[in-house]
Amino acid sequence: MINIDPLQRGGLLTPEARRALAEWGDGYSICDFCPGKLEEIKKPPIHDFVYGDLPAFIGVDHARVTNGARESMFAVMHALGKKDGCVVLDGNAHYSSLVAAERAGLDVSLVPVSDRPEYRIDPEGYAEIIEGQQKSGEEVVLAVLTYPDGNYGNIVDAKRVSAICHEYDVPLLLNCAYSVGRMPVSAKDLGADFIAGSGHKSMAACGPVGVLGVSEQYHDLVLRRSAYNKNKELELLGCTARGATIMTLIASFPTVRARVLEWDREVEKARWFSEQMESLGMIQMGDKPHNHDLIFFEAPVLYEISKHAKKGRFFLYKELKKRKIHGIKSGLTKYFKLSTYQLPEDDLRYVVDAFAEIIATVG
Amino acid sequence: MINIDPLQRGGLLTPEARRALAEWGDGYSICDFCPGKLEEIKKPPIHDFVYGDLPAFIGVDHARVTNGARESMFAVMHALGKKDGCVVLDGNAHYSSLVAAERAGLDVSLVPVSDRPEYRIDPEGYAEIIEGQQKSGEEVVLAVLTYPDGNYGNIVDAKRVSAICHEYDVPLLLNCAYSVGRMPVSAKDLGADFIAGSGHKSMAACGPVGVLGVSEQYHDLVLRRSAYNKNKELELLGCTARGATIMTLIASFPTVRARVLEWDREVEKARWFSEQMESLGMIQMGDKPHNHDLIFFEAPVLYEISKHAKKGRFFLYKELKKRKIHGIKSGLTKYFKLSTYQLPEDDLRYVVDAFAEIIATVG
Repeated sequence: MINIDPLQRGGLLTPEARRALAEWGDGYSICDFCPGKLEEIKKPPIHDFVYGDLPAFIGVDHARVTNGARESMFAVMHALGKKDGCVVLDGNAHYSSLVAAERAGLDVSLVPVSDRPEYRIDPEGYAEIIEGQQKSGEEVVLAVLTYPDGNYGNIVDAKRVSAICHEYDVPLLLNCAYSVGRMPVSAKDLGADFIAGSGHKSMAACGPVGVLGVSEQYHDLVLRRSAYNKNKELELLGCTARGATIMTLIASFPTVRARVLEWDREVEKARWFSEQMESLGMIQMGDKPHNHDLIFFEAPVLYEISKHAKKGRFFLYKELKKRKIHGIKSGLTKYFKLSTYQLPEDDLRYVVDAFAEIIATVG
Repeated sequence: MINIDPLQRGGLLTPEARRALAEWGDGYSICDFCPGKLEEIKKPPIHDFVYGDLPAFIGVDHARVTNGARESMFAVMHALGKKDGCVVLDGNAHYSSLVAAERAGLDVSLVPVSDRPEYRIDPEGYAEIIEGQQKSGEEVVLAVLTYPDGNYGNIVDAKRVSAICHEYDVPLLLNCAYSVGRMPVSAKDLGADFIAGSGHKSMAACGPVGVLGVSEQYHDLVLRRSAYNKNKELELLGCTARGATIMTLIASFPTVRARVLEWDREVEKARWFSEQMESLGMIQMGDKPHNHDLIFFEAPVLYEISKHAKKGRFFLYKELKKRKIHGIKSGLTKYFKLSTYQLPEDDLRYVVDAFAEIIATVG
């Protein structure tokens, strides 16, 4: 099977992670030599990963492993939360950013998205929305940029966004669920105060597991210790990924660190694929030329076929399945997204040919 | 190796869970046929587990899978949280209960524990503490009983505790990290409003993963939906155990459901083991006769040896390791806890003989 599901391309385990999963699968297997704090466990080498490799990799002062990107975002929002506070999010934000803000008791304001076909976020939109909120008397406790978003794979100029947010004294969190582990990302280079990443989405790990990066300035607030137990960080409830999930993240890390250096090649492949699909009558939405492996298509040609195909709108799923291609949701034809991440060129060519054949034979 | 670590005895994977781990190890592998809500996934059969098997097993109206028992407790405390609110906990509570309350912005009051050697919680203590808090003007939003606690393995009369709490209109949460999956527990039979359980501690699952039980009365509050996305439950941030962890929980479930029926035999073994250890000069703390596999010993006889043994206080760990017995923390001699859970009688006899031999030869 060729898997083109954007949710799954970056989370396929490495052979090392598969071995870690078998070795550390039993519950609480990592806690044998815990001195009272997950991050202090030296055997297995969680300490070195959390205090050394991970913060260097994402360019932050402090890093932690969490139960996922949404849990990372909630930890930050909950720590920064205030009565009459709000969060400014990009209009392409993943639903979990909104849910995290809502759970933290924070209002949400969205930076508008441009119309079809680009669905762009203009960094200057942050200035307008933050200013509006501040004037209305709400305190903007945090801005979030989804980098890239999970619908169109659009990469916004995060450096510009962070500069704008800081002009208004608002810290910026980058939701990097689709970037950390796929492409080089450095919070410091981009000016971000926080980073959230996803192990199961983009770091070849068994989930749920994520990463959190925190700048020195926010260390004492976001990673504050419990008054009842000085070893335990409050927003992490003491320990987060206390099992095999963190071990798969660590096991895949050398591969992940190496693969982000091949990012330019991944972008080239994505662009090539997009061109091929457009030549078949599909229309790529979002940034063009595209800058990420997650690609959204409008497919009027497939939609037309679905109107008279035998299986109706399920024909595409069935036809792709017949050709051992997996990852476009069953029932979708008019719009769908997919990912080219880490697929060999031959496989991408095979997928394009399959679409061509389906259009020619079913259509 | 014979493993007597109380943290690990109940989390050893079944063969079925090992297979599930390999099959569902890749990140987001369970989301292929998600209709928008984790619990609604029918293939794999998460829907049937969460809406059928699990609530029946723990005797609750509504059940969910979470990232662990502490995450279950935090979800409830956060949902019930109020300004000037507090939580009443048993004095033997796990640190994570206190940390969860603190994170939820709630004060903590502890029901006192009796002195050595029993370290008992008197259910009537809940009346006194709740009344005291209410008189002081704090609203008691929740009471928690650790059932059993993780130090002494003491089982408190939860039925009496729930009756008392309800007299004061305070809901009760049972922290069953060491019971659900080991012994029969029914929230309804015990009168509890909430249950928190741990997959990696007691349900033969790969962690972090836990369960949450909620009575009908609190359904709409604790499992309320997001205003931004009607499919997503706020306190679960939409989806919790979105990977292999939930699949190992489900895979082990038939075994776990069957094994709790053998609980009387487990208690017999624990009692026999305790008697044997006492005949060697150790003193069992907590309920006596004991009602759980988690057993805490004072060992003056080993402590005396440690004063002049070659490796000092590390001698016990080394001597046990030499005999392929694992699970008492390195450096402990004066006090330690262990678990007899699911160990064959021959293994327990072997452990007792090892202690006897160590005392005779090193002492």
